[in-house]
Amino acid sequence: MIEDQLTPPYYAVIFSTVLADDISGYIEEANRMEELAKQQKGYLGIESARNEIGITVSYWQTLEDISAWKNNIEHVEARNLGREKWYKKYQLRICKVEREYGFEKN
Amino acid sequence: MIEDQLTPPYYAVIFSTVLADDISGYIEEANRMEELAKQQKGYLGIESARNEIGITVSYWQTLEDISAWKNNIEHVEARNLGREKWYKKYQLRICKVEREYGFEKN
Repeated sequence: MIEDQLTPPYYAVIFSTVLADDISGYIEEANRMEELAKQQKGYLGIESARNEIGITVSYWQTLEDISAWKNNIEHVEARNLGREKWYKKYQLRICKVEREYGFEKN
Repeated sequence: MIEDQLTPPYYAVIFSTVLADDISGYIEEANRMEELAKQQKGYLGIESARNEIGITVSYWQTLEDISAWKNNIEHVEARNLGREKWYKKYQLRICKVEREYGFEKN
């Protein structure tokens, strides 16, 4: 699912990942974190795709909402587990969405 | 491939897509556009993943660089073809990257 038009300005977290060879338990944990993210204040949406690399973009109303989610205790634990077990490499970018355009075929 | 640490502030274009059922010719055109993007002024990097949806994030030094790429004639033609043939739906978001963090396992 891609997210429909949102109203800038708001924030995006672009999380780009390369997984390790053994990803047992990863899918379950990633799904659990996605469900948890959806319950947080300021959450606007999430988009995710994976083949050679994974890209997950989550959308938030403010930087404070992103900080609060970063510091959520279950999220901290999942992140530690991720660094220990599942991620070979990742890059996380925090961005302010300034403009957007959409297209949908009739 | 994910992009290594870049130096904020710079810009990201998040292009989230749902493809039509018939995507003949799409992969070739997408690869061609990626090669062309890499030759443009201000290009910093690109990341792309697809399963149910596609997410391509391209990184640029300035908003002017993004405008110039948007108006590149071959890119305009590819975009028109994309709307006509390959895309069921897309959303394009232009963002200013303010902070970033990376992790790589030793």
